[in-house]
Amino acid sequence: MTSTSRARPGRPVDPDIEPRVIKATLEVYGAVGWAGFTIDAVARTSKVGKAAIYRRWASKQDLIAAAILSLKAPKPVEVTGHLRDDLTEIANRVARRYLGPHGLAHIRAMVEAKVYPDVLGEALEHIRRGAIASGRKTVLAAIEAGELPPGTSPSLVMDGLAGTIMHHILMVPNSKLAKLADDPSTFIEQAVDFVLAGAGWSGPEPE
Amino acid sequence: MTSTSRARPGRPVDPDIEPRVIKATLEVYGAVGWAGFTIDAVARTSKVGKAAIYRRWASKQDLIAAAILSLKAPKPVEVTGHLRDDLTEIANRVARRYLGPHGLAHIRAMVEAKVYPDVLGEALEHIRRGAIASGRKTVLAAIEAGELPPGTSPSLVMDGLAGTIMHHILMVPNSKLAKLADDPSTFIEQAVDFVLAGAGWSGPEPE
Repeated sequence: MTSTSRARPGRPVDPDIEPRVIKATLEVYGAVGWAGFTIDAVARTSKVGKAAIYRRWASKQDLIAAAILSLKAPKPVEVTGHLRDDLTEIANRVARRYLGPHGLAHIRAMVEAKVYPDVLGEALEHIRRGAIASGRKTVLAAIEAGELPPGTSPSLVMDGLAGTIMHHILMVPNSKLAKLADDPSTFIEQAVDFVLAGAGWSGPEPE
Repeated sequence: MTSTSRARPGRPVDPDIEPRVIKATLEVYGAVGWAGFTIDAVARTSKVGKAAIYRRWASKQDLIAAAILSLKAPKPVEVTGHLRDDLTEIANRVARRYLGPHGLAHIRAMVEAKVYPDVLGEALEHIRRGAIASGRKTVLAAIEAGELPPGTSPSLVMDGLAGTIMHHILMVPNSKLAKLADDPSTFIEQAVDFVLAGAGWSGPEPE
């Protein structure tokens, strides 16, 4: 079904409606979570009518799931086989994700997926699988290139990298959060060095 | 003011009321967060009347803050100067905290302190200071003992350790969470080894 088939005659469809509603959903969900979430608040925030929202998403459950799914990285990490470069790219993505405008919605969804798996489980599982695949490819390429010991656990390396960044963001006092979001590069470099050493990185093979 | 001074004549005070209300508060808060939190739900869960709750805590804000503060470790980590032992003790505390019955309330509070600093900021700040002090003492003792390079960042080591554990718990599929909670020792050992290597641990000095 094309979107025009849903439009009423004489009333052009605003192509902007869906991204606006998704953005508002992430804002509202990030602030209040599942228990406080209402379509009313999304309508107010997005300035889109409730009827137009319900025409596209049947329930608040569907809407939140679609919004969380939209946080999935648009394309997988390009693995170069140079571990420092690859981990830096992943660390930058993780930092942007959690420090960005929808970072709270994302972390909140990870927490609430434990309480409301029916609402959030599937969307989170998609994101989880993407992250696991990227981590696996990265670590296996580094083992192949002789930069990591055979048998290195991809999930431990990824928990180490993403977890160090997430915990740092959660522990930073609110007064310093904007500065970190503005330029996380120094912290990212420290975190990558820490994880490289943790994983037993031997550096690139000599040319 | 002792608790008896608040009791009505002829009606003995149940010494159990406060811990029961705090426990119920953590359950309710863990499930729904600040936006969905009500004293009604706490009253139902704890089977304590609303009047008795309001006699002790003036508002839901006060009640949540008291409940989060109750998650603070009762005593600081005893630092031995043997880094593997000290980090294992800290890792066990972190894992118990996040995998325990109030783990979700704790992580949720860390997230929501960014959205509602007025409600949660102070309680979280107490817990944060305790964790920072333990990490600092541990890392400084290990530097002193020659087990870590001078200049090692205590906060990076703590973000690495607590973050790796937190991220692992958030990423584990719900179906495997009970097994992890039941026996996290294998994962904890891996996480501690990872962090020791990450921090550039040189092992204990030879005797």
